Amino acid sequence: MSVTAAAGFRAAGVTAGLKESRRPDLALVVADGPAAAAGVFTRNRVQAAPVRLSRAAVADGCLRAVVLNSGGANACTGAGGAQDAAAMAGAVGSALGCAVDDVAVASTGLIGVRLPMPTVLAGIAQAVAALDRDGGGAAATAIMTTDRVSKESVARLDFAAGVVTIGGMAKGAGMLAPALATMLVVVTTDADVAAAHLDEALRAATARTFDRVDGDGCMSTNDTVLLLASGASEVSVAPGTPTWSDFVAGLTAVCADLALQLVDDAEGASKRIAVEVVGAYDEGQAVAAARSVARSALLKCAVHGEDPNWGRVLAALGTADADFEPDRVDVSFNGAPVCVGGVAAGDLAAARVALAPREITITIDLHAGTSTATVLTTDLTAAYVHENSAYST
Amino acid sequence: MSVTAAAGFRAAGVTAGLKESRRPDLALVVADGPAAAAGVFTRNRVQAAPVRLSRAAVADGCLRAVVLNSGGANACTGAGGAQDAAAMAGAVGSALGCAVDDVAVASTGLIGVRLPMPTVLAGIAQAVAALDRDGGGAAATAIMTTDRVSKESVARLDFAAGVVTIGGMAKGAGMLAPALATMLVVVTTDADVAAAHLDEALRAATARTFDRVDGDGCMSTNDTVLLLASGASEVSVAPGTPTWSDFVAGLTAVCADLALQLVDDAEGASKRIAVEVVGAYDEGQAVAAARSVARSALLKCAVHGEDPNWGRVLAALGTADADFEPDRVDVSFNGAPVCVGGVAAGDLAAARVALAPREITITIDLHAGTSTATVLTTDLTAAYVHENSAYST
Repeated sequence: MSVTAAAGFRAAGVTAGLKESRRPDLALVVADGPAAAAGVFTRNRVQAAPVRLSRAAVADGCLRAVVLNSGGANACTGAGGAQDAAAMAGAVGSALGCAVDDVAVASTGLIGVRLPMPTVLAGIAQAVAALDRDGGGAAATAIMTTDRVSKESVARLDFAAGVVTIGGMAKGAGMLAPALATMLVVVTTDADVAAAHLDEALRAATARTFDRVDGDGCMSTNDTVLLLASGASEVSVAPGTPTWSDFVAGLTAVCADLALQLVDDAEGASKRIAVEVVGAYDEGQAVAAARSVARSALLKCAVHGEDPNWGRVLAALGTADADFEPDRVDVSFNGAPVCVGGVAAGDLAAARVALAPREITITIDLHAGTSTATVLTTDLTAAYVHENSAYST
Repeated sequence: MSVTAAAGFRAAGVTAGLKESRRPDLALVVADGPAAAAGVFTRNRVQAAPVRLSRAAVADGCLRAVVLNSGGANACTGAGGAQDAAAMAGAVGSALGCAVDDVAVASTGLIGVRLPMPTVLAGIAQAVAALDRDGGGAAATAIMTTDRVSKESVARLDFAAGVVTIGGMAKGAGMLAPALATMLVVVTTDADVAAAHLDEALRAATARTFDRVDGDGCMSTNDTVLLLASGASEVSVAPGTPTWSDFVAGLTAVCADLALQLVDDAEGASKRIAVEVVGAYDEGQAVAAARSVARSALLKCAVHGEDPNWGRVLAALGTADADFEPDRVDVSFNGAPVCVGGVAAGDLAAARVALAPREITITIDLHAGTSTATVLTTDLTAAYVHENSAYST
């Protein structure tokens, strides 16, 4: 269901023909009427044409539709690429009878190649005809690239005034990034939320979810997260009311679930690694320390080999912008202590056993305060190298 | 010859027994008398005991000897590790009859494990006995870890006042890092240079050589570069004299040669990649842009696969702290243009051919100024993952 779980939305996913595989490649999400909307986008300075278009489209806090394609990122495509993105929005706007600037566009695939516009425009017509109240699953499938599985998540919030539903879809398996993961995400809700508040909720939710996924440290040119609120539940949600924190928590839960699905499907990975920093001076330093460890290629290799090489954790910590005394740091792998007070501790054989599961938690206590943060990453494998060695040609 | 090419130095490399392989593991470099000295060290905040010791030893601008071991990094070893490093310096000082604080120590190997001190001290005695005017090669061999070949370089400068020799050795194949590469380096010269000027020359030389090697973005806890000047040539070198720029250039050439040898021996690499940024606003921005591209795991995989995926160059540039307009950037691979004005250019088949050699130069013109910088890295391979997946246990 995902993006059509909430009332007031229809979606479709079709095969336009953009991929050699002839798998579904074009998705459309449409609100029944004007929806309040918010978006967060890649912080890469090289931004794809659809990112620039969607940022402008969502600036007024209102969207009617989002059109997404896999099979081509429409990034580094110059003025022609910008025209193509505008033509996609225009085609959707014409078909739905809405303003072109109420249509957002998101693209994913190879950078630097123009989209075959006749194919895209025919796909849009096909998608408009296929729009359905149950189209969320088809849409989630159509945005996949190297993803092995589609990613969907739904939360239902039972408020006194009625039930609010939040549903989302995501794609992305490579380029999980320091600022935003891979990543195209559309989340919809039938809550009645003003656009400014929607923006606040989305920023809070993504800061602790997608922003804390770091697959390979590479930041995409196309990352896009859009949130649309139809108001169809007639349940009003706003800061200062009792429902607000529950709404933000529900939205965060959906984003966290999608983020976890992204990590679990990361290219070539054999393990999911949660780098959990505790005892940090503040949350920013906790994130910095966790991210530094999560980005260490040497550590990611060691975890792949189930080698309890905690020295690589300390070496990575030493490059982070975080306060700590090296001789006070504790490290454990899945609960097995390997370093206490900055020096070797515990039984490395036990630590090796602790590294056998697919899910690894590296817990680091900086003993510098009370703040905590967790960054998710994966191990570094020969399969990652293989998948990323032959792609564009 | 390396560290014994310059007059006034002896060296030795012996097998103390620190490595299971029973390969040489302990090196000693000794000046005939007190030598002017300078050092640069890792900027990692987690610093090995020998780094802390050597930083203090060189602070007064004078060294007599450097003792180096492979087979153990003596990092994250607490107060005991600091005592071990001090005992190494003490043993050398006693044997040579010099002050303990005129002895520097450098260690490389696994983090977090104490050195077997009886073995180390017996090795030091053995090395003192083996000191030789031709011992440079043996010393260079004894500092190897996963290095496949030893690294040595010599420059001879023919000044009016006489010949000055500069010779160096280096080790390091993994953890090539953003701040300093792997890396233990000792360079000696028989020039007569005041310590303060030696420090100035060393910082200038390393800033453009070792500091611009970035293998996997991981910064070591043990990186050490030491420069000793014996004065035995009786050729005085100082800033403001005609010989100064030639001396700095010669020292830079030795460091550059050693840095290149480090990259060529990087763990698991099949290609050397020079990321050359031109047209940058200033040199700092040129380095930042080149380093960002050199650290992109996705790009390094693409080069490994000889895939001219220039979109990954632009995606990496977009995260760098450097001024440029995305739609003005040009990129070429070994001279074959792949991106002009931010969009696709040239023939990707030709670019694929251009990526076939072992040595790859990626040239990026930012069109934002006149500064330039080159950062050296390698491709990312399954062999890198393999080498780093099983190491400590």
